Amino acid sequence: MAEMNRVFTMETVPLKFGWGALDEIGHDLAALGLRRVLLLTDPGVAAAGHAERVAERARTCGVEVVVWDGVRSEPTDASWREAIAFAREGAWDGFIGLGGGSAIDTAKAVNLYTTHPADLMAYINRPLGDGRPVPGPLKPLVAIPTTAGTGSETTSVAVLDLLERKVKTGVSHRHLRPRLAVVDPQTTLTLPPAVTASCGLDVLCHALESYTSLPYDRRPAPADPAQRPAYVGANPVSDLWAAEAIRLGARWLARAYHEPGDREARTRLMLAATYAGMGFGNAGVHLPHAMSYPIAGLVRGFRPRGWPGEGPLVPHGISVALGTPASFRHLGPHAPERTREALRHLGGDAGAVAPEEAGAALAEWMTALLRELELPNGLAEVGYTAADIPALVEGTLAQQRLLVNAPVAVDAALLEAVFRDSLRLW
Amino acid sequence: MAEMNRVFTMETVPLKFGWGALDEIGHDLAALGLRRVLLLTDPGVAAAGHAERVAERARTCGVEVVVWDGVRSEPTDASWREAIAFAREGAWDGFIGLGGGSAIDTAKAVNLYTTHPADLMAYINRPLGDGRPVPGPLKPLVAIPTTAGTGSETTSVAVLDLLERKVKTGVSHRHLRPRLAVVDPQTTLTLPPAVTASCGLDVLCHALESYTSLPYDRRPAPADPAQRPAYVGANPVSDLWAAEAIRLGARWLARAYHEPGDREARTRLMLAATYAGMGFGNAGVHLPHAMSYPIAGLVRGFRPRGWPGEGPLVPHGISVALGTPASFRHLGPHAPERTREALRHLGGDAGAVAPEEAGAALAEWMTALLRELELPNGLAEVGYTAADIPALVEGTLAQQRLLVNAPVAVDAALLEAVFRDSLRLW
Ligand SMILES: [Zn+2]
Ligand SMILES: [Zn+2]
Repeated sequence: MAEMNRVFTMETVPLKFGWGALDEIGHDLAALGLRRVLLLTDPGVAAAGHAERVAERARTCGVEVVVWDGVRSEPTDASWREAIAFAREGAWDGFIGLGGGSAIDTAKAVNLYTTHPADLMAYINRPLGDGRPVPGPLKPLVAIPTTAGTGSETTSVAVLDLLERKVKTGVSHRHLRPRLAVVDPQTTLTLPPAVTASCGLDVLCHALESYTSLPYDRRPAPADPAQRPAYVGANPVSDLWAAEAIRLGARWLARAYHEPGDREARTRLMLAATYAGMGFGNAGVHLPHAMSYPIAGLVRGFRPRGWPGEGPLVPHGISVALGTPASFRHLGPHAPERTREALRHLGGDAGAVAPEEAGAALAEWMTALLRELELPNGLAEVGYTAADIPALVEGTLAQQRLLVNAPVAVDAALLEAVFRDSLRLW
Repeated sequence: MAEMNRVFTMETVPLKFGWGALDEIGHDLAALGLRRVLLLTDPGVAAAGHAERVAERARTCGVEVVVWDGVRSEPTDASWREAIAFAREGAWDGFIGLGGGSAIDTAKAVNLYTTHPADLMAYINRPLGDGRPVPGPLKPLVAIPTTAGTGSETTSVAVLDLLERKVKTGVSHRHLRPRLAVVDPQTTLTLPPAVTASCGLDVLCHALESYTSLPYDRRPAPADPAQRPAYVGANPVSDLWAAEAIRLGARWLARAYHEPGDREARTRLMLAATYAGMGFGNAGVHLPHAMSYPIAGLVRGFRPRGWPGEGPLVPHGISVALGTPASFRHLGPHAPERTREALRHLGGDAGAVAPEEAGAALAEWMTALLRELELPNGLAEVGYTAADIPALVEGTLAQQRLLVNAPVAVDAALLEAVFRDSLRLW
């Protein structure tokens, strides 16, 4: 047997958190030595006034902020190129990503490709891209999330769709981490309930997946420490973040959905998103996120009720959440104690459940939450049938980078069973 | 009433943790781009072979490490000057602090004063020093703790004694934070039990004090965000770190004391030290640490049994711990719920205790632990009498930077009562 890994790493982003924290953004930009900053956001966030508020506050501190509101939700190679091209026309000493994961990820990409210019595929993860390591530090990037969702403000990853290949992939390198995360739950007050639900489920899945990922000390030691991946698996520090994110998400998500104006729920959910990002940004996610890539990528006509904009879309959080019950039902028996602990953090009656039943109990718990949040009843309601399962399985198997984090080896047979169970949830 | 603060900040140091993590140090130094590094340590740590091991591992990765083993435990202005003078004779692109808080703090000082040369008092905290802000980033500093104690590897503070003034103070600035903490519990295997006890009590006090410090949202908002101190008070993130550090410290300290070779106890205690450092490094410590400064500074003939070296000394952890029972007995009623939660994390029977009794119960719990660890029975056994109380009170009142973190205003009358109660503990 190979020698086991005994070392884990943790890296986070300096955090400023609080109701109204965004009011101090001018000071924060000036303290980073910035004078001329490009802010990347999407039209919806710009329309809500957040971008103008940042530019205004920056101006009073002598920092010029130029707003580009062309970020697309679910960025693609085409939308990244567009943003990079715009950025190349100016001279910037730093960047701001304002919005959901799409805006922050696009800002990471702009920072990378303007600081160390290269063909777009150069830094994209293998095997789709060349996986070239980022050559050196980037300019300061300030991440300002306006959804309690992706946790991109604390991670070293940027995700995009490759349009021609119809597949999601990304860039992953520690230099991508923002220099500062300014997290102000006030920005989430105006999120429509459907968006709150999807983003909040993403948070809960980040936490549940990193908490149940293959532990760092049950993986082979890397031949060379340089090859230890950023996702090291569950470890004492990521467990701390993930467990608290599970508790907060379980307790406050439904409330934020039903009572969008509830400040405490918005604040707790935003904390949960940040904690979950810190947890999975170091430990990793696994099966539900791997499944989400083809679930979102192969979408035909579906668009959720109450979702702003138009066109076919399975939002990230929904695409992740729909695979969660079946994932945990099938994986639970391979990580029984951990799964039962996760159920306990959710607030489920873990004491009454035998370890080998914990996966099924967690699946029931999640299903009840999905009903409460008025999600589609499984992949069938999103437009998939049994005939789509081979393509969904194939798309999931392509996400080996995530599947290696699962508590047990994931093969096509397991995936088929999980997708079949995910067609209809209740 | 002034507007209350609503924002907290959190900043940590990238962490590599695990049994044998030090074996990868050559890789870590090379990954930081370092070629010629000055390692600062004390003679005891050097004699244990840790410094040579680091230099050896570095050499195989093409990094030259020069060892200077002149660090004094409880550094002074004189010992800082000596280290800085040595460092100025060479050219270094980075530094390593290897040892307890003394070595890591000395390395922080060397990094600061060689990168931004100035008179020693320039950067020292006011009112004793000029409190000049650190002008810019420092060179990379890698912190390698070899005691499960100060948590200096994660903090932005360096502490020293000013010999002429007979007072402890320090430098505090975010640029002082190490670039990387390599935390390898294996380095603590050879610590003598007395050192294990003192350092472990320091950990527990960091955690208990930051957990009970005046919360960030019960302080006035700063007029200017730049004036928000690094110690922002108890907040959701520091609570998470502190609570886990309390649980781990309470569970594993006595075991590491009685069974020095117990790997699990050494590992858990090292984790506790790191977590506590992250917690108090953002929230702050208060009364027991403020009292510890004069308790250590005014020492006459005392030296603990089983402590290496010679000369009068109240080690930091002992000087903090002896004031803890009385501090919590007196402060508890001003933060009853928090104190009861702290007692619960310690493993005490919090359910059976009324909130207003929690301080007294926590004091009893700590006293039992101090007996178990064979600490002196109060300040009397360290050589102080009632006649020393005025000087001890005065020395504590000088630590306003810490006292403002207490859950209630601390005046001379309160301090007198606390010191009187600390003369004899059982
Ligand atoms: Zn996600
Ligand atoms: Zn201390």
